[in-house]
Parts: sequence; C-alpha cells; structure tokens
Amino acid sequence: MTKPQVALGMEQWCWPPAFDEGRLPSPDQPYWFPRRETMDPQQRNEAVLQRIREVMGYAYERAPFYRDKWMPASQEACPPFGDYLCVGPEEVARLHGTSGTTGRPTAFAISRQDWRSIAEAQARVMWGMGVRPGDTVFIGAVFSLYMGSWGALAGAERLCTTAFPFGAGVAGQTARAVNWLAQMRPDAFYGTPSYALRISEVAQEMGTDPRDFGLRIMFFSGEPGASIPAVRRQIELAYGAEVFDCGSMAEMTPWMNLGETSGHGGMLCWQDIIYTEVVDPTTHRLVPFGGEGTPVYTHLERTSQPMIRLLSGDLTSWESGPSACGRTYPVLPRGIYGRIDDMFIVRGENIYPSAIDEVVASLAAYGGEHRIIISRTDAMDALAVQVEYGRAVAGDEQAIAAFGATAEKALQTVLGVRAKVVPVPPRTFERTDFKARRVIDERDLFRSLVDVT
Amino acid sequence: MTKPQVALGMEQWCWPPAFDEGRLPSPDQPYWFPRRETMDPQQRNEAVLQRIREVMGYAYERAPFYRDKWMPASQEACPPFGDYLCVGPEEVARLHGTSGTTGRPTAFAISRQDWRSIAEAQARVMWGMGVRPGDTVFIGAVFSLYMGSWGALAGAERLCTTAFPFGAGVAGQTARAVNWLAQMRPDAFYGTPSYALRISEVAQEMGTDPRDFGLRIMFFSGEPGASIPAVRRQIELAYGAEVFDCGSMAEMTPWMNLGETSGHGGMLCWQDIIYTEVVDPTTHRLVPFGGEGTPVYTHLERTSQPMIRLLSGDLTSWESGPSACGRTYPVLPRGIYGRIDDMFIVRGENIYPSAIDEVVASLAAYGGEHRIIISRTDAMDALAVQVEYGRAVAGDEQAIAAFGATAEKALQTVLGVRAKVVPVPPRTFERTDFKARRVIDERDLFRSLVDVT
Repeated sequence: MTKPQVALGMEQWCWPPAFDEGRLPSPDQPYWFPRRETMDPQQRNEAVLQRIREVMGYAYERAPFYRDKWMPASQEACPPFGDYLCVGPEEVARLHGTSGTTGRPTAFAISRQDWRSIAEAQARVMWGMGVRPGDTVFIGAVFSLYMGSWGALAGAERLCTTAFPFGAGVAGQTARAVNWLAQMRPDAFYGTPSYALRISEVAQEMGTDPRDFGLRIMFFSGEPGASIPAVRRQIELAYGAEVFDCGSMAEMTPWMNLGETSGHGGMLCWQDIIYTEVVDPTTHRLVPFGGEGTPVYTHLERTSQPMIRLLSGDLTSWESGPSACGRTYPVLPRGIYGRIDDMFIVRGENIYPSAIDEVVASLAAYGGEHRIIISRTDAMDALAVQVEYGRAVAGDEQAIAAFGATAEKALQTVLGVRAKVVPVPPRTFERTDFKARRVIDERDLFRSLVDVT
Repeated sequence: MTKPQVALGMEQWCWPPAFDEGRLPSPDQPYWFPRRETMDPQQRNEAVLQRIREVMGYAYERAPFYRDKWMPASQEACPPFGDYLCVGPEEVARLHGTSGTTGRPTAFAISRQDWRSIAEAQARVMWGMGVRPGDTVFIGAVFSLYMGSWGALAGAERLCTTAFPFGAGVAGQTARAVNWLAQMRPDAFYGTPSYALRISEVAQEMGTDPRDFGLRIMFFSGEPGASIPAVRRQIELAYGAEVFDCGSMAEMTPWMNLGETSGHGGMLCWQDIIYTEVVDPTTHRLVPFGGEGTPVYTHLERTSQPMIRLLSGDLTSWESGPSACGRTYPVLPRGIYGRIDDMFIVRGENIYPSAIDEVVASLAAYGGEHRIIISRTDAMDALAVQVEYGRAVAGDEQAIAAFGATAEKALQTVLGVRAKVVPVPPRTFERTDFKARRVIDERDLFRSLVDVT
C-alpha cells in the first residue's frame, strides 16, 4: 500500500498515518525527519500526490459529504521545583501550580510516567461513576493552574471518551457553554457545583431547559457543594442527571482518589491509589470509623513529587465501608464539608459555612445565592445571612417575610445560635465560574481598628 | 520486588507503577480493577503498607526534602459532527469548535489516532524552531474552543518538553503570568503577538523586565503580528527572544503546517503534513511562485475530518524555497498578512489593516496600540488612525505633534491615501488576551442609516 513512498526513504510515511511516538532525534539533529524535510521537492510532490489520492479515496468511501460535493472539491470552509522533586527536570511533563495571588506560588512538577498513572487512576474512578468509552465528557472548568480540569481531561482521554475541554472563566463563556451543551448533548459534565448552578440559571434566562442537554452524569470537585444534600438536589432537579462528588487536593493529583461511585452514599477513599487517613486536627492521631477529623494523604503512584502524609486541613467524617457498589473502601458519607480554618465561632458555637449552605439551599423559595456576614457590636458577635428569594415569591411581601422567618428558624435549629436573615431579590449576588466565596467576617475589620487605636 | 502483591492477585500493582494503557474493561463490567476494588480491606492494607515503604524508601533516596524532614513526616502542605466525519463517533477523542457567538458554531471532532498525528506534526515543526526535549514551554493562550493552545500543548508533550499550560483570558491572569514567567523562567513561550505585548507592558508596570524571563524562543499564531517586521521587532526587543510565526487555521490542525524555522525568512509550507496551494481568490487557479493569493489546504494525515482543498480566505504571497535552514518547502516570506474580507477600500485604494499596523509599530514613539476608523462625510471616505504615543514623549506637546506628523507622512507613503493621525495618550485603548481588533468602520452605520431613511 505504501511501497512507493518507502522506496523514497520518507520516514514513517504511510496511510493511514502511524508514528513511533517514542522516537526523538538527537539534540544536535536539525531535522525531525531529515529525508522528508530536505528531499527533492518534485519527488515529494509525487509522494504527496499519491497521498492525496489515498485521502480522497478514503474520504469518498466514508463521508457522504464528499460523495455529494464531488467535484468541484473547493469548499468554504531547586528553584524552580523545590528539593522534593524525585525525577530529573527533563522527566517533568507538566507544570501546574497553586493559584494564589499573594506570596510565592507553589509549582507542581509532574513526570511523564506520573501523568500516565494519573490518567489511569482518574479514568478508573470515572469508570466507577458509570462513564464509559464513547461517552462525551464536557469539562466546564478553567484550564490554567487549577488541576481539576486537567485531571478530568486526563481521565476522560484514558477512558477513550470524547473529551470536550470547554473551559470556563472567560467573559461571555457561560452563554456559549449553554449553546454548546444544547448542540452537542454530552453524556457527562465536570465542573464546580457553583458553576453548574450558574450555567443552569443562564440557560433558563436564555429559554433553554438544562434537562434538554441530556446529561446522564455530572461530577464535581473544588468545593463541598455536591455532597451538601440540598445543593445536590438543586443540581439533580435542574439537569435531571446523576450527581457525583469527588476530589481531594491539587497536590494529591490524581485528586479523584476521593470519589463517589454509582453506589452513592458518599465519596470512597480509593486506598490503592492514594492512601487516606482521617486524623484528629490537633493530635494528628487516627480517628476511628464513625469519627470526624482531617484527611491525611499519601501518594502510592507518584514518582515526581510524591506526597507522604500530607495534612489537608479539610474536614470530614468517615465510615468503614463497603459501599453499596461493592467496593470495600472507607467511605466519607458527607464528603469534605469544609476546611478547619473556614470554621468560625459565634457566641461559643462552632459554625461551618457549609451548614448554612445546606439550610438555605433546602428552602423551597431559595433564590440561588446568599452571603454570611459576621459582625461585632458591643463585644457581642452577630451573625446575619442575606438570602436571595426566588422569582416565584418576588413582589409578594408576605411570602418574602415568611421565607425569612422560615430560614431564621431553620438556621437557629441547625446552628444553635440566632442568625438574622435578610431576604434580598433574586440575582442580588454575583455568580461564580469557579468556587463560591460567601463569608464576610467584619470582625477582622473591627479587630484591626482596635489594633490601630 | 512486587511478589507479595502479585500473590494477592492485585491487577497491575507494582512499583514504580506501570499500566497497560490500552486496556479497557468491557462496558458491562462495574469495576476497573475488580480484585483491587473488592478485595478484603485488611489484605489490601498490607499491600498498601508495603507500597508506602517502597514510596518512602524511594523518596528518601532521591529527595533531600524528605531526608531533612524525616520524622515527623506530617507536613502542611451527525449531529453533532456533520456527515464529513470519517470515523465512528466512538473513535473521537477530542471535541473543539469555532468560537463565534452568532449562528450555529462548527464542531471539530478529532480521533485518537489523529490527535497523536497532530502531536507528532506540531512537535516536528517546533523542533524546527529549536525547541528541544527538556525545554519548558509556557502556553499563554486560552484553553477552550480555540485550537491554538491545544495544538501547542500536544506538540510540547510529544516533544518531551515540560509543558506549562497557563492559559489566558481570565481576570487578573496577566499579572499572575508575569509572576510565573519570572519564577519558572521557561525556555519557550506560545501565545498571540497581542498578548505577548500586553504581558510585556504589565511586566514593566510591575517593575519586571521581560528580558529577565530568560525566554529563548517565542512562537505565535492567531493573527499576523509575528510576521509584521515592526511588531516582531517590538517583541524581540521587549523579551530578547527569537520570534517564530506559524499557523494556518483551526480546521487544518495540525495548524503548524505553516511554520517558521530557525532559518527564518518566512513560514514554510510543510507539504508532507498538509499540502498548501496558493490560489487566485477569484479564479481559484494556482498562483505561480512570487505571486499573491489565498492558501488552499489539504490534510494528509487526518482520518476523522480530513479537509480537502479548504479555501482559507487568508492572504499571502509565496516563494519556491528552499529556506536558509535547508528545508525544501515553499516559503511565505511575509507570512499570512490578512484576510481577504479584512481589506477595505478608501478612495479607490485597497488597504489591509496589517499595513497600518506595520507603519505605526515601526515609529520610535509608538505607545503600543491604535485604532483605525473609516468614516464617510458627503459621500467621501475618510480614514483616521488614533495612535497611542509612548511615555517618553508624554507631556511634550511638540514631540507629540511631531509624532503625529511623522505617522501621517509614513501612512500616506505606504497606503497611497491620506490618513488623519490623532495621537492619544498611552494606555488609551484596551489590551487583549487574544487577537487584536482595531478597525472601526463607521460607514456601515452610515449605510444602515441610509437604508432606514
């Protein structure tokens, strides 16, 4: 089939194309393919002509488009990685890093073999969610330093799905996401819960029902939302899809080492990928199953920057498993529900923002966003929650007041302290393409004023 | 080394990890690794313990960080693809698409094998620029529908470089780009010329000299800039790096089929990757070497959506080659310098925006941006160019007036018609993370007013 070209000595020249992906010219070699690049152009043109015939024959054979169009054929149409790097710099395939804006950011260096192992692990967990070869996976999260999107992509590729790396974060992109989801009808979606809810709002404003996207599976990381029952229910109702939570930390990529399966009931600790221990945040001693603590992670498959007993600072509780899917891993029934340093204390009660998220998101008339404001007057802490009411009650002052009263009562029950609820109109607060930030602690301001005076 | 785990029947469990990347469970199989996922947890813990020892030994052996830290070890730390798809949908590895906001966008479906071929081709052209295994390649372009960033990444991976897929387009990202470039000192940069100039401006505002990034190679696509001599010179001066232009069209990915080499002198048509013909825009007949026309492309390595004689609508002129690097491909000495439909006519003269870009960018006191305004008064076309002057002349009215006069004279010479130049202060115009849009044609408005009345 490719005899004439072989006779010309053209390297790896055949149809359909096939390459030795391991091959590299030596560094002092100026040409990738010396023969193909420096040969007599007339000879090459002859080979190219034959190739064009092969391509045309191939296209004609397989594509109705070309059978219709034939002819005319013209168409419109040390530094820098730190000393915990365990491989040579030349083995580093990918650079990512923390996305903080203050201080020197941390760089993650991932070797070629590690990247393959990461893909293997992510694919494996996605398989557990029911993602299958041939599915289309829409990735609606920013591709930059953030590891979430890249890890989902690596898994989607290894799983032989069709990856649709759409991204997020660019002006105007959410409306385009709605159009593409409606046009391509992917099988699975990955992003943050906040962004899924934003897409759903924008779709509805555009007159599109997100259920018409036909999504079967939606998997999330980056923030606790997908393990907060009321938030999960919101997403399930909006899209009519099955929701999965997953994710540990960027440093621990393959971050899907915590990952929910079709058995649901919580995220599993996939212990043969990364070993997870839940420990007491103060003593760092192992917490028995049934207890609450912070996860500590150990890489089992990383050769470039293996993390050994990395203390996460996140908060979870764990059970022994097995899960309903039959896997015998430990289970985090409520997922990761906060960070230790997210916790604030109001009049002696420990409060996690996710507890407030859960309460307000479960209210029928909830409008989709809220803000938590902690202040201090006369040395007394005060907690206020500004909650958007939904369009259904907009204009009905009695219903709005009832919404506020219901929210206050529910918060008092769950938190153990009074929270003043201020109902505000729908779309009062900015939506995010990434992770929600809802807590405003005005006591810090108060403290700094005290310090100054 | 891995005997105990093998005895436990744990699939592909060894250290360092190695996987059969071709393996897939059958679709009805609920587990990726049935044994590892459903085995007795105690047995698995034993295997995991041994693995942890291997990992710890490995890390201890290789990483000073761990030798220092040891112990305690805890740390902080059809639709949809159209009928020109030539493979089954299950073979599609990647979905991308046009980024237009009006009308139904076009989806690109790229097969697994094609993606590998694309990577091979892009790597090969990057090799021709002097990129080598072990180099770090910073990709400063948005990762979304736009193919440029993805193609650069695929090539960087195949070439066994360290890929740093930083992205662009998100608020606040340019300042972070400056910090990361200064911190990681990559060897090569990919993006649009407009964005490289923007990064350089932001760096200078932050007190950082872009020359300190230590970039050796900068390669560009997405707009004509890198082939406009004055723009190229601006970039070279700002960064002290060697500049390369490349790129045809997203549809033609591997879009580096037009790509400059270390021989410079223009972009080469890498004819054994994609076959390029330059044709007359009207008759579509081949233009002889030395002539001007529009490129027509034919894929030689695509099995999923091969394009056969795709008319680009771009504008170029070509020569026979060989180039100074010894490759015997045709050469586009001035690159792609516009699109046919970018051309506008003012008082009978055909004008391409890139000609104006070239003139103003070559002025010593140019401030970095400009806008081209075409208007009509009394049925007479008028051309005005608002040009930023640089900080060096700011406040010096005489120098600013001289700058305007020089610009007017240079434009008149090159364009053959008078253009009124309006000098404006530095940073008057918005910068872009993507492609520059500088032409404002007010005659359209005039026309529509005429239509209405």
